[in-house]
Amino acid sequence: MTHAKLPQDVIRKKRDGAELSPYEIEAFVNSYTKGDIPDYQVSAWLMAVVLRGMTRPETAALTDAMLRSGEVLDFSSMAARKVDKHSTGGVGDKTSLVLAPLAAAAGVTVPMISGRGLGHTGGTLDKLEAIPGFNVNLPVAVFRRVLDTCGCAMIGQTAEIAPADRKLYALRDVTGTVESPYLICASIMSKKLAEGIDALVLDVKTGSGAFMKNEKDAAFLADLMVETGERMGKQVVALITDMDQPLGNMIGNALEVVEVMDVLRGAGPQDLRELCLELAGWMLSLGGVATSVAEGKQQSARLISSGAALERFRQMVALQGGNVRAIDDPKKLPQAKHNMPVKSAAAGYIMAMQCEQIGTACVILGGGRERKEDSVDHAVGIVLHKKVGDRVGAGEVLATIYYNDESKAQHARQLIEQSCEIGVAAPARRPLVHRIIGQAGDKH
Amino acid sequence: MTHAKLPQDVIRKKRDGAELSPYEIEAFVNSYTKGDIPDYQVSAWLMAVVLRGMTRPETAALTDAMLRSGEVLDFSSMAARKVDKHSTGGVGDKTSLVLAPLAAAAGVTVPMISGRGLGHTGGTLDKLEAIPGFNVNLPVAVFRRVLDTCGCAMIGQTAEIAPADRKLYALRDVTGTVESPYLICASIMSKKLAEGIDALVLDVKTGSGAFMKNEKDAAFLADLMVETGERMGKQVVALITDMDQPLGNMIGNALEVVEVMDVLRGAGPQDLRELCLELAGWMLSLGGVATSVAEGKQQSARLISSGAALERFRQMVALQGGNVRAIDDPKKLPQAKHNMPVKSAAAGYIMAMQCEQIGTACVILGGGRERKEDSVDHAVGIVLHKKVGDRVGAGEVLATIYYNDESKAQHARQLIEQSCEIGVAAPARRPLVHRIIGQAGDKH
Repeated sequence: MTHAKLPQDVIRKKRDGAELSPYEIEAFVNSYTKGDIPDYQVSAWLMAVVLRGMTRPETAALTDAMLRSGEVLDFSSMAARKVDKHSTGGVGDKTSLVLAPLAAAAGVTVPMISGRGLGHTGGTLDKLEAIPGFNVNLPVAVFRRVLDTCGCAMIGQTAEIAPADRKLYALRDVTGTVESPYLICASIMSKKLAEGIDALVLDVKTGSGAFMKNEKDAAFLADLMVETGERMGKQVVALITDMDQPLGNMIGNALEVVEVMDVLRGAGPQDLRELCLELAGWMLSLGGVATSVAEGKQQSARLISSGAALERFRQMVALQGGNVRAIDDPKKLPQAKHNMPVKSAAAGYIMAMQCEQIGTACVILGGGRERKEDSVDHAVGIVLHKKVGDRVGAGEVLATIYYNDESKAQHARQLIEQSCEIGVAAPARRPLVHRIIGQAGDKH
Repeated sequence: MTHAKLPQDVIRKKRDGAELSPYEIEAFVNSYTKGDIPDYQVSAWLMAVVLRGMTRPETAALTDAMLRSGEVLDFSSMAARKVDKHSTGGVGDKTSLVLAPLAAAAGVTVPMISGRGLGHTGGTLDKLEAIPGFNVNLPVAVFRRVLDTCGCAMIGQTAEIAPADRKLYALRDVTGTVESPYLICASIMSKKLAEGIDALVLDVKTGSGAFMKNEKDAAFLADLMVETGERMGKQVVALITDMDQPLGNMIGNALEVVEVMDVLRGAGPQDLRELCLELAGWMLSLGGVATSVAEGKQQSARLISSGAALERFRQMVALQGGNVRAIDDPKKLPQAKHNMPVKSAAAGYIMAMQCEQIGTACVILGGGRERKEDSVDHAVGIVLHKKVGDRVGAGEVLATIYYNDESKAQHARQLIEQSCEIGVAAPARRPLVHRIIGQAGDKH
């Protein structure tokens, strides 16, 4: 096989729809990371990838090159299997905070490296930072110590992990090249596999609050990520789950921590509990501490009832510098100064919620970011009192807004009002888990 | 209509195949020319254009924005109509040097701004510079004076004309985004229409020595350029002409000047003479000095016979600082030190010539450029003694190579030998003009 030598040859080959060799992809990514290929050549190549796509071997080669552009953590000295979970992002999605301590309590090691919120979706790091003192910027040595001590640790991406992804993502963000399943797959998988994990559970969201609005696109991405992980020797399963309305009732960083505590205490909203148990079942099964997903779910439910999962969360918070008293007393979490109700104009059933709009309402309150450099107000957010399928009376309270700025609250209220569609007959329930791809799930 | 505001919105819109408004294209091009949009956003957009294409209004808007990025010459004070000719480039294509003085002798004003050779194709400026002293870098004021005095002037692109094209072309060259008819059209037409012309004759080459190897691609580009010019209020016609073998017999800068003199003296090879008369016929017709193309051709033939065209060439050379004695005495043009014959190994008919390979042989001799920054040896080149359809005996001389470097000559000889295909029966003749698009020609 002959290899394209100049960057422009690699660009042209992809432009013309030919398959790049692993060597060509590796050389291109490495040269870019080192600064030997300028941004303007890479952005042209990225656009060619967006419009021409990639084969499975190309996607795996890109993921591999990005993964190996930096440090790959090695926790092989720890006996337990290392398993992580990753979500493609949604509104009110706080399962990571439940799952890390829950799987750790079952004997699985969870080295979780997460991101911040951007646009209408929240981020795990922002939620953790709502806990006073919680430090998500641990050096790798400390990350390892926390992991060794309590079986889970949650930090942000370090400069050493997948630098190619950081550089590529910054470029994609300003060149209209974010929306490609191949590039999304490589970005997610390169970072996750740099965590030194054995297995990965992917929660691929679909619906009005997800990046993939329709299930076909979500399944395509899920399948791509599962196969890419498997080509790299990892066990990977993807659950396509519903994001047509927010997950749970609370949206906003401190409020979501409160709801996480509720779930870890055996309470909390049904949908959030159910999805946490489902994902935990998979984590325990892939982690080798349960013989099946069903057994993993049962074991997870018991670890919640017994308080073991909550205790594990408490340990992790303490080890990462967080104020443990905030776990027992939500008043110690950041509190918004004011709140206002959002009332239903009509009586009937909630037929649908424009989920992205509710996420945007939280961003407007200050609870999220429009741009990466924005700061976040951890106290503000929204509590939903009604969800899709619920009956409401005219003038009944749909949601409560927690805010620090009156004009922003008014804007958020309008968005929430507009986002709820009221009808005369109860809508059909959407299942929480639409499909499972990989392992015992769908063939791919 | 709402307009995309950020560069990345414009990129995404084109990526998704939507039509950009003239305003969006103008703002994008202007911001790039001013340096307000970085190369990496523009190269992503260029790749989206390559793969998604452009509508006719988009192509016209891009051409217009590039045209108006710099100075647009205004010769409206001169009474005669201003007409230019542009060729998409080929091997041995020296018609510009014949046409400018010929049309000027007929009373048309020809403000010709040309380019240099790159790759296997030659460039008008390099040919002109084979005439000792000829200055192609005239300031606009001098260009205007020459034009006013003798009706034609031939210079290189100035910094003031279409700076957006220069910046975009440099970026396209290294990002695999050269090969798009829309971008090629905008590049050519923006420069040509900046010359302040009323009408334009396009010579779109097709065949083994052309950029457009097949006639379909050539016709597509021709149609695009004709429509773009017409949308901008100009009369434009395109002739699809044959470049499956070199035009005329001489290739190389000084040699091509010799052949131009031959044609202007009423001699020269049949194909070159015929194409010059055809293109001149159109220039005279669009220039309003002939009532039809046929009459324009007859008038052109008379202007050659009478010596008026040659006299006009002599005037232009003198006005642009060239040594007029070189016109009457080819020995005053740069001379190669050596020459060698290229002989036919077999007897038979020349079935085909790999025209691009013959152009490359001239580049190898030093007569052209592999890269923009290369210098050119005006003296070297190739004289073909046989063309497609001619009979050759075994050992008969096919061509003579004029060279200054023995090893380069040996390499060129091999290429020329390989480029000639010898067969047993005479091949069918290809017409010189395949199609005419625009004006009285094909509908588009």
